[in-house]
Amino acid sequence: MTDTPKDEENFVKPASVGGGSLMIAWQLKDRTVLIVGGGEVASQRIDSVIGTDAHMVLLCPQKGLHPRTKGYIQHYPERITYYDRRFTGPAELHKVDLVLTAIDDPQRSRDIVELCRQAKIPVNAADIPDLCDFFFGAQIRDGPLQVMISTNGNGPRLSGLIKKKLQAGLSGYEGEAITKIGELRAQLKERAPGVGGPLGRKRMRWMTQLCDKWEMADFTQLDESMMQTLLDEGWEKERVPTIRELGGKPLPTPSNTPSSSSTSILSNTVPWSLGLLTGAALSFAYLKSYFSTPPIP
Amino acid sequence: MTDTPKDEENFVKPASVGGGSLMIAWQLKDRTVLIVGGGEVASQRIDSVIGTDAHMVLLCPQKGLHPRTKGYIQHYPERITYYDRRFTGPAELHKVDLVLTAIDDPQRSRDIVELCRQAKIPVNAADIPDLCDFFFGAQIRDGPLQVMISTNGNGPRLSGLIKKKLQAGLSGYEGEAITKIGELRAQLKERAPGVGGPLGRKRMRWMTQLCDKWEMADFTQLDESMMQTLLDEGWEKERVPTIRELGGKPLPTPSNTPSSSSTSILSNTVPWSLGLLTGAALSFAYLKSYFSTPPIP
Repeated sequence: MTDTPKDEENFVKPASVGGGSLMIAWQLKDRTVLIVGGGEVASQRIDSVIGTDAHMVLLCPQKGLHPRTKGYIQHYPERITYYDRRFTGPAELHKVDLVLTAIDDPQRSRDIVELCRQAKIPVNAADIPDLCDFFFGAQIRDGPLQVMISTNGNGPRLSGLIKKKLQAGLSGYEGEAITKIGELRAQLKERAPGVGGPLGRKRMRWMTQLCDKWEMADFTQLDESMMQTLLDEGWEKERVPTIRELGGKPLPTPSNTPSSSSTSILSNTVPWSLGLLTGAALSFAYLKSYFSTPPIP
Repeated sequence: MTDTPKDEENFVKPASVGGGSLMIAWQLKDRTVLIVGGGEVASQRIDSVIGTDAHMVLLCPQKGLHPRTKGYIQHYPERITYYDRRFTGPAELHKVDLVLTAIDDPQRSRDIVELCRQAKIPVNAADIPDLCDFFFGAQIRDGPLQVMISTNGNGPRLSGLIKKKLQAGLSGYEGEAITKIGELRAQLKERAPGVGGPLGRKRMRWMTQLCDKWEMADFTQLDESMMQTLLDEGWEKERVPTIRELGGKPLPTPSNTPSSSSTSILSNTVPWSLGLLTGAALSFAYLKSYFSTPPIP
């Protein structure tokens, strides 16, 4: 007897089950991050947190400060409150939303982590993976675009190498394109408001078609008036104009982008035809010299 | 008077300040994730969480279950505890470490988020960005490698497009290479134990040189005995052997990888020489026909 509904029989198992992390983009607006320690690792933590809107509190005796940490404290006083002392106890965790320890003393790290657990504050203890609620990884940032690479504890060096490979796949237009698309979507929502429903689905469908048809570079050219034309001539008429129709022009795709068919044809054609001409020239030259003396009848 | 230390004058400002998320890899081993709702969005949440080691508790009346959610409940009973009912109140949050709401009722979502805040449990409320402690994004997973793409709320469609571009930069060897490098590092740590210190730095330096010199594909060939040879002939002798020296062979780099100089020379040479031969052949054919009648003296 098989009474399993058809839908469940079609279940496609996920590619990976278990063993991984939950990759998330943590929101830190109006939040406070406590950093314990001020050495090189602490400076790398600031590198990560400075890109968010969090306020940082940093605890470290002056003599333990890495030059980069000092630089941060000096250049971003509105973002970092610095105290020239060590972590003193549970009171330090008052109104703190996230804790990052970066000190050389594993036992003190453990003690701080224990206090965080009691206070239910997420914590990362540098160099003690077992105690971490979360890990950091290599990052690519281009405006609103953020990419994070984790090797799940197999080494920051590798994350860095893979970051370079991934960067080669990006055109450099992504950040600006995403910003423009965000503006366009906001204007579209003004014309066709509401969450979900048939109109919401139609909106999503049109945006999807646009994103599929246009290159990232196309979006970067959109100015206010072109956006209006795009909505008037595109959304309202249920079609997707090209950037050329709106007065823009296709920008060259950088060479490090996965090549579109047109560029790959070009790059294969040029040397081929160069070879053709060279081959012809060499043959002519050879035959000319061969026939330069009259043939013997 | 300038008493600023030299180091601080050299401070390089970070590329991005503010506006972003803190991208982190959340650890969920022995943790419980509560998912409220069972529709399509809930099934996408399970797609994300199933890759971790978390246990899931799912609350949703049977009739609200998406086929994919049903499939998960059926295929992974050891991972998902399913209750055929709605969220009832604060008691649901007992021993829960993370909450994901995926229901169509914004007010109920808000109520659940409020309870999570009181219990200090991180929460994501689908479709209500303002209430989210964290966002999800598009993901690439290859064994221990995880890549997450966030457009910071500018749309999942875009994350998906950028994911494709990034994937084109990967060779497909990364996951296995990372696994092998993790094993190698573990064996190296047995030979040269300890955290930090001169030995730790020497270990890190050697691993860095190895990772810089070898291709990802090289690492995938390492078996137990090759690892021993690599440590004997490499680490012990303070040098970095090639994969060939260990009995391996350089594997072809897939065409979608940023091409190494050797492959790009090849791909440009082949059509060029093909053109040369064709040009020569055409010229010979042309000249042969031209000279096939004896020249008039």
